[in-house]
Amino acid sequence: MSSSPAAPAEQQRPRRPVRFGIMGCASIARKLARAMLLAPAAAVAAVGSRSEGKARHFAAENGLPPGARLHGSYEALLDDPEVDAVYLPLPTSLHVRWATAAAARGKHVLLEKPTALCAADLDAILAACEAAGVQFMDATMWMHHPRTVKMRELVADQATTGDVRVINSLFSFQADEEFLHNDIRVKPDLDALGALGDAGWYCIRAILWAVDYELPKTVIALHGPVKNQAGVLLACGATLYWANGKIATFNCSFLTNLTMDMTVVGTNGTLHITDFVIPYEEKSASFSMASKSKFAELHIGWDPLPSKHVVTTDLPQEALMVQEFSRLVQNIRDADGKPEGKWPAITRKTQVVIDAVKTSIDNDFGPVDVSS
Amino acid sequence: MSSSPAAPAEQQRPRRPVRFGIMGCASIARKLARAMLLAPAAAVAAVGSRSEGKARHFAAENGLPPGARLHGSYEALLDDPEVDAVYLPLPTSLHVRWATAAAARGKHVLLEKPTALCAADLDAILAACEAAGVQFMDATMWMHHPRTVKMRELVADQATTGDVRVINSLFSFQADEEFLHNDIRVKPDLDALGALGDAGWYCIRAILWAVDYELPKTVIALHGPVKNQAGVLLACGATLYWANGKIATFNCSFLTNLTMDMTVVGTNGTLHITDFVIPYEEKSASFSMASKSKFAELHIGWDPLPSKHVVTTDLPQEALMVQEFSRLVQNIRDADGKPEGKWPAITRKTQVVIDAVKTSIDNDFGPVDVSS
Repeated sequence: MSSSPAAPAEQQRPRRPVRFGIMGCASIARKLARAMLLAPAAAVAAVGSRSEGKARHFAAENGLPPGARLHGSYEALLDDPEVDAVYLPLPTSLHVRWATAAAARGKHVLLEKPTALCAADLDAILAACEAAGVQFMDATMWMHHPRTVKMRELVADQATTGDVRVINSLFSFQADEEFLHNDIRVKPDLDALGALGDAGWYCIRAILWAVDYELPKTVIALHGPVKNQAGVLLACGATLYWANGKIATFNCSFLTNLTMDMTVVGTNGTLHITDFVIPYEEKSASFSMASKSKFAELHIGWDPLPSKHVVTTDLPQEALMVQEFSRLVQNIRDADGKPEGKWPAITRKTQVVIDAVKTSIDNDFGPVDVSS
Repeated sequence: MSSSPAAPAEQQRPRRPVRFGIMGCASIARKLARAMLLAPAAAVAAVGSRSEGKARHFAAENGLPPGARLHGSYEALLDDPEVDAVYLPLPTSLHVRWATAAAARGKHVLLEKPTALCAADLDAILAACEAAGVQFMDATMWMHHPRTVKMRELVADQATTGDVRVINSLFSFQADEEFLHNDIRVKPDLDALGALGDAGWYCIRAILWAVDYELPKTVIALHGPVKNQAGVLLACGATLYWANGKIATFNCSFLTNLTMDMTVVGTNGTLHITDFVIPYEEKSASFSMASKSKFAELHIGWDPLPSKHVVTTDLPQEALMVQEFSRLVQNIRDADGKPEGKWPAITRKTQVVIDAVKTSIDNDFGPVDVSS
C-alpha cells in the first residue's frame, strides 16, 4: 500500500525503523530478535524481563545493539517512550494482561500464538488494540514466506486447483522428557491449550488459509485425545465441516515425529507441502502442485506429473513477518494510517476454531457449531 | 518358499507357467493381460466374455498369443480344462456367483477389488476357495511393488518409525461426465459401494498395511458423504480408532483431482508417499521417510532432512502380483502345497472395514464396532 506510485514523497524519505521492545526472554524470542536485526524496517530498542540480568544475558547472547535498553520488568518496558511496538512471547495465560497493557500505552502488538486461551480473551486484546489504534498481528511466521504467497496464488486459481474440497493438516513433534515435564506448553496455569494451542494452531491456520478464511460450520473433535495428568492436551485432532461440503481434518501432537503437513485437494488440483510451518531450509523452500492429474495410457503412470515449485527468499520468514508488521506500524506512526484489520480478523477465526475443538473435546466429541 | 536351498530338484526343473483365463474384458483387464504376458510364471490361456467376438477383439488388441482360446461365455471359460486360474474383473455384484463357480471348478481366483459388496459375500467366496483348495488373492497391485516392501521394512522398524500413531490416506480422481453417468462404479446394481469400494478400498488397505493388519476397534464415518441420485457413494471418508490410541483418517472421492496419498506418523518417524497405488512412473518409484526429525539451531530449518528413497523395478507391479499369485498356484498345482492364507485374510480385513464405514454412514455417522 505505502509503496504505491502515488506516494513519491514517501519514497524519497526512508522511514525510521520501528523500535521493538521484546517482552520476555523465551526461547522463541531469540529467533524473533534475529528477525528484527534482519528486517530493514525494524530495530530492537529494548528488552524487558523479570530481571535486568536476564535481559542483559539475552541481549548479549543475541547480538543486540549496544544501545538496546534493558528493563528488569515488563512494566518498565511498556513505560519506555522509545518503544513503538512490543513482541510478546510470554506464556498464553499472561497475554490478556500484557497485550492489553501494551495497547493501552500505545504500543503496537506482535503476539505469539496461541494468542489467547479462548476467543473471549482474545477479544479483550483486540478491543484494547482497536481502542488504542495500534496494529495487532499474531506471530504465525509461515504466513509471510513468499512460498505461502505462491501457494495462495495457485490454490486460489480455478484452473489450477478448482474448488477446494478436502484439506488435511498434521503438525507434531516428539517432545523429550524435559519438555513433557517442564515446558510451559504442558502447564495448565501457563499454556492450558497444550498441543492444541501450539501445534494445532498451525493446523487450523493452514486449513483456514486453504479456504481463504471461510469459517467452518461445524467442528467435531477426534476421539482419543491424549492429556497429561494435569489435563493439558498432548495430542488431539478434529474434523471441520463447511456448509458447501468442504472437509478438513487435522491432528496435532507432542508425541510423534516432527511433521508439518498441509494437503489441499480441489476439483482440479492437489497441493502437497510437508514443511509448511518451518521450511526444511531457510533460503529455499518448495511444495508440490499437481493439476488436472490423469493416468497415462493403460494406467501405468501419471501424465502430467506433479510440479515441484521452489521459492527462494533472502530474508527468513520471521524477518519478513517483522518487516510486514513494521511497515504497517510505520504507516500508522508516520503517515496517519489506520491499523490493518486483516491480521486480527485471521487471528480471531483461528482462535474461534480452537475454542470449538476444545468444546467438542469437553463435550464428548459432539458437533460444535462455529459462529464468529 | 519354493526357492529355498532345500529343494534342489525343483530348481533344476522349471515349473510350467500358470495358465490364466481372463473372465470379462473390462478396461482393467487390459493392464492385467499385459502383466500376465510379462510375468515369467504366467501365461494367458483363454479369454471369456459374454460374446466370442468381444473376446476375439480383446485378444487381438492386447497381443495375446495365437493359442489363447476365446470363449463366448463365462461358463465356457470355467469349463476349459487348460485353465488353472481365473482373473476376475467383473462388476462387484457378480463376484460371488463367478468366483464361487470358479473355485468349485478348481480354478484359482485372482479377484478385482472391491472383492465383494459386503464381508458376508466375501466369506462365501473365501469358503468356496478354501473348500476347493485353490489360492485366493485380490488384485490390489501396489502391495506387490518392491517399494511397498521397502516401506514395510522402514515402517516396521522401531528405530526408524517407532510406534505408528497417525495414518492419513487420500485417494481421489476427477471422474468425467461419461464416468459419472455410465461407469459401473456409479451403478447401484453393479458396484453399489461406489467410491468407497473403489478408491476407498485402497485407502483402507493402506491404513491396515501401515498397522500390520491390526483391525481398528471403532470406525466413524465422516459427515457429508456425496451420493448420486441412485444412492451410490461418490465421495466419503472415515476415521478409524484402535484400542491402543492409533488414529487413521481417509477420504475417497470420484470428484476431486487424482490424489493417492498415504502418510504414516510414528513416534520416531514419518512416511510420505503421494502415488502409493499407481506410481508416477512404472520402473522407478519413490517415497519420503523422515526419522528422528529435529529442528536445526534456532529452529530455522530441519536437521536431519527427510530421505527420498527410490526403488526401481524391471517388472511392473501388476506383473509382480501375477508372478506372486502364480508362484503360489504352482506350489499347489505342482508341489502339493497349500493355499497361502495371508492374502484372503488381508482381503477380509479390508472388506470388514468397508462394511463398518458403510454401516456408520447408514447409521447417521455413529461409531461402529469392528469385529473380525
